[in-house]
Amino acid sequence: MWFARDKLIRFNHCDPAAIIFYPQYFVLFHELMEDWFNEGLDTNYGDYISRARLGVPAVRADCEFLSQSRLGDVVRFQLEPVHLGKSSLAFEGEARCGEELRARARMTVVQMSLDTRRSVPFDDRLRAHIARFLRAG
Amino acid sequence: MWFARDKLIRFNHCDPAAIIFYPQYFVLFHELMEDWFNEGLDTNYGDYISRARLGVPAVRADCEFLSQSRLGDVVRFQLEPVHLGKSSLAFEGEARCGEELRARARMTVVQMSLDTRRSVPFDDRLRAHIARFLRAG
Amino acid sequence: MWFARDKLIRFNHCDPAAIIFYPQYFVLFHELMEDWFNEGLDTNYGDYISRARLGVPAVRADCEFLSQSRLGDVVRFQLEPVHLGKSSLAFEGEARCGEELRARARMTVVQMSLDTRRSVPFDDRLRAHIARFLRAG
Amino acid sequence: MWFARDKLIRFNHCDPAAIIFYPQYFVLFHELMEDWFNEGLDTNYGDYISRARLGVPAVRADCEFLSQSRLGDVVRFQLEPVHLGKSSLAFEGEARCGEELRARARMTVVQMSLDTRRSVPFDDRLRAHIARFLRAG
Repeated sequence: MWFARDKLIRFNHCDPAAIIFYPQYFVLFHELMEDWFNEGLDTNYGDYISRARLGVPAVRADCEFLSQSRLGDVVRFQLEPVHLGKSSLAFEGEARCGEELRARARMTVVQMSLDTRRSVPFDDRLRAHIARFLRAG
Repeated sequence: MWFARDKLIRFNHCDPAAIIFYPQYFVLFHELMEDWFNEGLDTNYGDYISRARLGVPAVRADCEFLSQSRLGDVVRFQLEPVHLGKSSLAFEGEARCGEELRARARMTVVQMSLDTRRSVPFDDRLRAHIARFLRAG
Repeated sequence: MWFARDKLIRFNHCDPAAIIFYPQYFVLFHELMEDWFNEGLDTNYGDYISRARLGVPAVRADCEFLSQSRLGDVVRFQLEPVHLGKSSLAFEGEARCGEELRARARMTVVQMSLDTRRSVPFDDRLRAHIARFLRAG
Repeated sequence: MWFARDKLIRFNHCDPAAIIFYPQYFVLFHELMEDWFNEGLDTNYGDYISRARLGVPAVRADCEFLSQSRLGDVVRFQLEPVHLGKSSLAFEGEARCGEELRARARMTVVQMSLDTRRSVPFDDRLRAHIARFLRAG
């Protein structure tokens, strides 16, 4: 099940061609993951980081940029988890403007303790929330 | 032939775990590409953008993050072109700290006009410079 | 008359103390100015930059950071223009979380042509929209 | 006594006019402060943050942008402390390209514990290093 949010391409995302500088796509996909925690997984992302001292750094990020996004475009970012491991999570991401596919990503993150910087298994509660979004099949 | 430069992991690259936030790896690989233009390809990157009105946006960026880079680490970033097309360029990238491989990337960029936002073939001069670095075989 | 929008303090704004890295305040005040163009001044900011080839770079930015903003805080950013010159605009800005004043800014921007990089007087239409927000007295 | 380092204005600093986006000036002044810790104050900035768990967030940042800096410019950033309090430090900053003054800043930072987020007096060793740079008179 896809989780989607619209993002405005802003001045600070853009390069001298007035199109998005590609690392900003990863920043926006990260924003989307924060939104997903807050609004899709019933997990306050600020508390997750600052109180639980957990994080989900990427271990792989692969993105194709298919068409340019320009300053002022409203782009729909969406993600769908495709594999849920003990402490790892793979998801696919897409960025679309209208019918046009702008970017297609595949990313893997791992839940980590911010203090020990070691992987930490997802607890049952968060796992159950993530599982609701897992791609069928 | 690899082109390498050392980069300091700075405060503005780091997240609340005091490790690099992964989109900053792509920013640093882009810095490396700028250094390569300036120092490896005899092409002033500022003039390339501002006067020639050309750019090299990514059409694909794929990076594995193998080990964490922390604030204050000096990380050796390097790239090697592996395929040179008419207007596209694929290269591999690595980030190492001492013997430790921190990240491994594969990226493809396309030379584009900043005005028309269409692809533009590399001219002979720049092509010859890039070709000197092309991976043998 | 103040123009206000709520902004979520996100992972990419935060430093190793999980509080906002102060240059990000300026990025967020700039986002607010974009919102103001789009929603307060009836001027599409993307077109303003990309089609009209105008911009409003800062000539002065002064900000006091009174209290820390943490990851996950929802902070109300607001601005009010206090002086409108021929091509310059001074405004005050505030960032608040609940009743707490987090930051207080004063900034001056100048309308500039992106091509000539010279100042350009505001036209009557934009001037009239800005004037509606000018602080009384 | 001024502490100075040259900084290249890079693609990621620049906006659609191919000039530096002004919040990036503050990022570059912060880079300069890191360099100053590492090279001027005999204090490894990475350890200062990650081991000592201290930081120096800004409580005020005021900058005039006098002339534009463009992609590819090499800009000399320099700072000089002008007041050293118990846990606070005020300094002036300048950015110059050749003889041209591009930006002039005044900033105040406070040493803070990253854990308690409260101010912490500078210890004698760091204070002595800073004092060597204090503006005379």
